[in-house]
Amino acid sequence: MTSFSVFDTQMMGRAIQLARKGLYTTRPNPSVGCVLVQDSIIIGEGYHQVAGQGHAEVNALADAAKQGHSTVGATAYVTLEPCSHYGRTPPCALGLINAQVARVVIAVKDANPQVADNGIAMLQDAGIQVEVGLLAAEALTLNLGFMKRMKTGLPWVTVKVAASLDGKTALSNGVSKWITGPAARQDVQRMRARHCALITGVETIIADDPSLNVRYEELGSLKSSLSPTSLQQPLRVVLDSQARLTADFMLFSIETPILLVSTCGYSDAVQALFPNHVSLLQVKANSAGRVCLNILLKYLGESCNSVVVEAGATLSGSFIEHNLVDELVLYQAPKLLGSEGRNMLSLTDYQSMDQIPKIVLKDQRNVGQDTRFVFGLS
Amino acid sequence: MTSFSVFDTQMMGRAIQLARKGLYTTRPNPSVGCVLVQDSIIIGEGYHQVAGQGHAEVNALADAAKQGHSTVGATAYVTLEPCSHYGRTPPCALGLINAQVARVVIAVKDANPQVADNGIAMLQDAGIQVEVGLLAAEALTLNLGFMKRMKTGLPWVTVKVAASLDGKTALSNGVSKWITGPAARQDVQRMRARHCALITGVETIIADDPSLNVRYEELGSLKSSLSPTSLQQPLRVVLDSQARLTADFMLFSIETPILLVSTCGYSDAVQALFPNHVSLLQVKANSAGRVCLNILLKYLGESCNSVVVEAGATLSGSFIEHNLVDELVLYQAPKLLGSEGRNMLSLTDYQSMDQIPKIVLKDQRNVGQDTRFVFGLS
Repeated sequence: MTSFSVFDTQMMGRAIQLARKGLYTTRPNPSVGCVLVQDSIIIGEGYHQVAGQGHAEVNALADAAKQGHSTVGATAYVTLEPCSHYGRTPPCALGLINAQVARVVIAVKDANPQVADNGIAMLQDAGIQVEVGLLAAEALTLNLGFMKRMKTGLPWVTVKVAASLDGKTALSNGVSKWITGPAARQDVQRMRARHCALITGVETIIADDPSLNVRYEELGSLKSSLSPTSLQQPLRVVLDSQARLTADFMLFSIETPILLVSTCGYSDAVQALFPNHVSLLQVKANSAGRVCLNILLKYLGESCNSVVVEAGATLSGSFIEHNLVDELVLYQAPKLLGSEGRNMLSLTDYQSMDQIPKIVLKDQRNVGQDTRFVFGLS
Repeated sequence: MTSFSVFDTQMMGRAIQLARKGLYTTRPNPSVGCVLVQDSIIIGEGYHQVAGQGHAEVNALADAAKQGHSTVGATAYVTLEPCSHYGRTPPCALGLINAQVARVVIAVKDANPQVADNGIAMLQDAGIQVEVGLLAAEALTLNLGFMKRMKTGLPWVTVKVAASLDGKTALSNGVSKWITGPAARQDVQRMRARHCALITGVETIIADDPSLNVRYEELGSLKSSLSPTSLQQPLRVVLDSQARLTADFMLFSIETPILLVSTCGYSDAVQALFPNHVSLLQVKANSAGRVCLNILLKYLGESCNSVVVEAGATLSGSFIEHNLVDELVLYQAPKLLGSEGRNMLSLTDYQSMDQIPKIVLKDQRNVGQDTRFVFGLS
């Protein structure tokens, strides 16, 4: 086990801070930060901003060059193992080798077992000292989705629920405006903006006719660090097993990508009216005649690091019942909607306490008048 | 509006701290603290410990005398207006007059409108300077029950619920052991110990056969400041509209007072087997054939400052629906019991958001793995 100095930790902390700047914009790439240090002084900083553009290491090297600093013998702190392959950009490991740095400190290895250690080996073969594992947990949380997708091919799945103290998402007649307050609703907008895709069910579309996009003006504090043009809209995925949707719902009027997932095809007449930003996916039905969620997630895993499920109790409950959920985010309003209200999650009729879902509290904080809980599911 | 010095505030703060020591033992009297100050030095302290024994002022004066301090010209800080009547002890106002204090600072006036200002007038008539209102809100919270009872004749009513994130108190088959963790269950024991009475319904007795007493060994941190002999058991009140209970339930085996409340009498044969610590109360049925809660609370208000309702969803919900609840204490466990579980509160089928109960968050904190919310109802 390598031991790191306080200075090393400070520098990696800064690299993580830089990586965080890319949280809303790098997908499907990971958010990565890099700090270059010469004689205990930072000579260059960089982070990955947008997929297809410079990686963190390249940007940090460019920053050092721009300031006229030599990188020969420097130490590079990187939040993720430098890549070793030629993609849209040349390998970052090569960049560091060419810059003649002496030491590279890495927070976490590449998540893809097929490529992990390759970047490290490339650096070591060039005689560079490599140390791995500094602030690994902190660096991991920046890229939970990317890491999971690289390992499993599936996106990180978050189920979002807004409910009352007594676990209801609406009155019995469906009225739900507003359970949570404006601060929580802004927080949901920021959550959407971080995710590659948003999944909902056709029932939600028919009942509420939502647009399901991210509204820039509702991003609150995020607006100071994210410009309107940098905002990336999540893919809007609607599970419509029986192909009931038609082009006259609100979500179609917003020109960002939509994926309609059904178990049967839409009629030609209906399809003809869908706008160009709509894609169709037909998947196998499960035994209940619904879209098979495993197949859906495998499909989305080809391009999405993370998806957020904002759906009714049945679909959200189904993701949990099928053990497909990584995180449950609950916005809890200090209200009582009453026993006749709608339950937040349709789950099995458990017969003993050892059957209930295993959830672990990861974060709890006040968001305006409401409380936001983040639970990990295992 | 009188303005108080920082020193005054510190002294009243100390008096409140003293008053708090009586929280578990003074009922049905209020918890009161008193500090005597001469030349900016505390010369005596006292608090009311047990009903029938010395009041705070008397104890503080005795403390000063014991230490050989003169109280002539001193300032007395009292958390509640000194009493002006002869009860089990002589009026405290008279005690302060006889001690020749020069100034009395009072946090809050007596809650009983019939006697409020009498103690103050008695002091002023004796030429003592009286100032009222220092740390009034803090002092009030010590005696919410006493204050309400003095004003309205009704006890302070707290509904306690332990539920999951999705608002369930048990699985559909009734299994509820354990939703909350040991720390929350200890906290409930301390809450019971602070209350004059505990109300439950016959269904809870039949389903769970609880003893409903306070178990000293489960009082946790409170044990260091409360001896086993000082612990006062709450009156156990069971609402048994149809007089279904018999003497073979667990609660009868514990020899602290029980009040059985029915709308019809128990048969002679059943009554004959009830132990001596059981009292019976027969009250009018409401339109649903159940015990009229208003009548019950008026009866309990004769001797109880505060009652805690630990009952099923129907009875707890009924207290809320009838606007009889001052506070809702929710222990929320980080668990999902599922949509088929039992709802925490049976409430009306509300048709719009303006019909739901008005609740205001007063306190929120972690208790072990669980969260304890305290809401005020209005």
